Amino acid sequence: AIFEAIETYFTPKINDLEGQHWIITAGPTMEAIDPVRFISNHSSGKMGYALASAAAERGAAVTLVSGPTNLPTPQGIKRVDIKSAQEMLYACRVAAAEQADVFVGAAAIADFRVKDVATQKMKKQSDENEMQLTLVKNPDIIATLSTEDAAKYFVGFAAETQDVIAYAKGKLERKGLDLIIANDVSRSDIGFNNDQNQVVVLSKKSQWTPEKASKTELAKHLVDIIQTYQVNQPK
Amino acid sequence: AIFEAIETYFTPKINDLEGQHWIITAGPTMEAIDPVRFISNHSSGKMGYALASAAAERGAAVTLVSGPTNLPTPQGIKRVDIKSAQEMLYACRVAAAEQADVFVGAAAIADFRVKDVATQKMKKQSDENEMQLTLVKNPDIIATLSTEDAAKYFVGFAAETQDVIAYAKGKLERKGLDLIIANDVSRSDIGFNNDQNQVVVLSKKSQWTPEKASKTELAKHLVDIIQTYQVNQPK
Repeated sequence: AIFEAIETYFTPKINDLEGQHWIITAGPTMEAIDPVRFISNHSSGKMGYALASAAAERGAAVTLVSGPTNLPTPQGIKRVDIKSAQEMLYACRVAAAEQADVFVGAAAIADFRVKDVATQKMKKQSDENEMQLTLVKNPDIIATLSTEDAAKYFVGFAAETQDVIAYAKGKLERKGLDLIIANDVSRSDIGFNNDQNQVVVLSKKSQWTPEKASKTELAKHLVDIIQTYQVNQPK
Repeated sequence: AIFEAIETYFTPKINDLEGQHWIITAGPTMEAIDPVRFISNHSSGKMGYALASAAAERGAAVTLVSGPTNLPTPQGIKRVDIKSAQEMLYACRVAAAEQADVFVGAAAIADFRVKDVATQKMKKQSDENEMQLTLVKNPDIIATLSTEDAAKYFVGFAAETQDVIAYAKGKLERKGLDLIIANDVSRSDIGFNNDQNQVVVLSKKSQWTPEKASKTELAKHLVDIIQTYQVNQPK
């Protein structure tokens, strides 16, 4: 830890990401059921926003594609607000049109959306005790963008409640990612809606386990890891 | 308007609700799909919180049973936080155990909840493009409490997107309410997540149409209407 502290002290990092464009997604998506109801998830957006801040502090031009959150826009960042997964994919493609170096998918994107969104508020039928809501699969945003070579490097997240590492490795391969940041959202002390987080970062060959830290501190470590990976694996 | 202003000026209202216990529900409910996903709605809770403030200012003891909101607890109010409709019904019954005069159901309660809530995060099956989510009907909280005589007076809300008055009258009868406050949530200038609101108040025999106003001002008018109704229809 002392060695790291000295190393950090003597390594000037300010603006070493200058000239890079990072696209970072954050927050939940909101999938409409009808004009008043929706399906969403407990993502606060804190991790993605912290990453956006950390990358911008080191000089990157950051586009933050954000689902509904209560967070203020970090300084010097271009924020694009979306609701649904389909809107998020569209906004990412628009952002990637002007060249992207790093794509970080920190948003908690709904795997499924409602197949037939009602244009009027659905009425409860008094004689029916059950109803079926038909869901269809949403586009897999990071896998789609990876296939389209929308950025040079792809960093995903795996929020899991069981077999965290195994699922994360599967995602890394299947979605064509360079790095995946895995965390266990079943733990109440870290993750969703919490200021603390602990993760494991995996590449095809390596594994990093930063200490449990505030999302702000952790984001700085993660930007470090991503930048180190870029330097060692030039594309 | 001048006459009303003079009337308001000369009518001392402070503490005329003293000795009354009002139970007010507010905000959305959140129905779990699995540990990270949920179904909810766009209710901000502002109308219910404003009603709670307005009733407390006139001396009522107020229990505010609230779904997840970003609102501060109004002064001098007992707030009980819940997530699901089932939790809301339980909290209302607990509050009603110590005698309730007025029950105001301003929460936007999910009509349906997920039948089988997954204890682990659901995994997307790569070979399935559609999935069915089976929903079961939630208890109708205000109708249930009305049947149980949990309060003397019941005031409901009807947030509709079409045929607002007709639906509201149907609800009033079907749920055994004294008053129903109807609003058109398809209008973007009022209602959900907006500070302004315009409503129509219906009893079995009468109809009131307060002017479009801030939710704070409107809440004062509504408390007036409810109190006037109590005085004229003693139970």
